[in-house]
Amino acid sequence: MGIDPGLTRCGLSVVQAGRGRAVLPISVGVLRTPSDAELSERLLSISAGVREWIADYQPDVIAIERLFERGNVSTVIHTAHAVGVLILAAAELGIPVHHYTPSEVKKAISGNGRADKKQMTAMITRILGLSEAPKPADAADALALAVCHCWRAPVLARTASVAGHAGRPALAKERTQQP
Amino acid sequence: MGIDPGLTRCGLSVVQAGRGRAVLPISVGVLRTPSDAELSERLLSISAGVREWIADYQPDVIAIERLFERGNVSTVIHTAHAVGVLILAAAELGIPVHHYTPSEVKKAISGNGRADKKQMTAMITRILGLSEAPKPADAADALALAVCHCWRAPVLARTASVAGHAGRPALAKERTQQP
Repeated sequence: MGIDPGLTRCGLSVVQAGRGRAVLPISVGVLRTPSDAELSERLLSISAGVREWIADYQPDVIAIERLFERGNVSTVIHTAHAVGVLILAAAELGIPVHHYTPSEVKKAISGNGRADKKQMTAMITRILGLSEAPKPADAADALALAVCHCWRAPVLARTASVAGHAGRPALAKERTQQP
Repeated sequence: MGIDPGLTRCGLSVVQAGRGRAVLPISVGVLRTPSDAELSERLLSISAGVREWIADYQPDVIAIERLFERGNVSTVIHTAHAVGVLILAAAELGIPVHHYTPSEVKKAISGNGRADKKQMTAMITRILGLSEAPKPADAADALALAVCHCWRAPVLARTASVAGHAGRPALAKERTQQP
C-alpha cells in the first residue's frame, strides 16, 4: 500500500508485487477533508479512512512519502499531523511502514530523481499498464510510492540479510527501519 | 488538561479550575520516547500514554501548544507527528481541543508574551501554590497551558455567546474553534 500523505488530499494505493519487476494495480483513491473543518475532525476522518483501506486490502507493508523540510512550513506542519495519524494506524495494526523521499521515488520509477509530475504520471501509467493516467496527482504519487517499495523491498531485504549475517555496524541504522 | 507536545518529551498536566482565577494542580508528568526507536513505536507509545492520562483524569477539555513555524524544521515535523496523534486521541474520545501559541500562554500567565522560561516557571509555581518548581520545562509548560485555558475559557465562552446572539460574522472563525 502506498500513501501520499496530506490533510486536504491524501493519496492511497494498493498494488500486488509480481515476478521480477511486474506490479499489478489493485486500487487507488484519495481521502479528502474540507480545509475549513476543525483539525480534530480532519484527523478523525483521515484515521477512519486509512483504517478502512487497511481493513479492506490487508496490506503486508505500507510505503509513505517522507516529509521534505522545505516549501511552506504551515503546509508541512499540517501534512505532518496527518502523517502521525497514518503511521499510528499502521503501527496499531502491526503493519511495517517504509519511508521514501520524493527523489527516491522519482529515481526508482523514472531513473531520474528530478523527474517532473508529467513524466512520473506517464511512467506509472505504463508500468502498471493502466488504460488512462491516474488522477489527481496524489493518486499517481501513491501508486508511485507503492511501486517504488515493490522494487526496493528485495534490495532492502538482501541488504538486511547480509548485514544481519555479517553484523556490519555501518548498516545498523538501515536495518532498524525494517520491522 | 494541558499538553506541551513533543516526540522525545511530551509534557502533560491536569488542573481543576476554581472560582475566579483559582486553579488547583491535580497532576503533572512527562511522556518520553527514545530518540533511537522507530517512529511507529514512538507514536504508539505517545498515543497509549495520552489515552491512559485521559482515562485516568477524564478531562473536560485539552489545551495544547500551537506549533510555531520557526526553528529547526526537522524538530517541528517530529513534534507535528506527535500533535496529530495527541489530537486524534482527544477527538476519538470527544474531548474538545484548544490551541494556544507560546506567546499567548506567556502573556496569559505572566502578562508578558516574551517572558523567559525562568519567569514562566516562577509564575506557574506561585499561581498553583506548588512547594517546588515543576521540572522539566515540558512539565511546567504543560501546566502553563492548562492554566492559560482556565483563564481564557470564560472569555472565549462569552465571546462565543455574544457572537452567537448577534451573529457577527467577523467572529465566525473563532467560534468554530469551540466545539
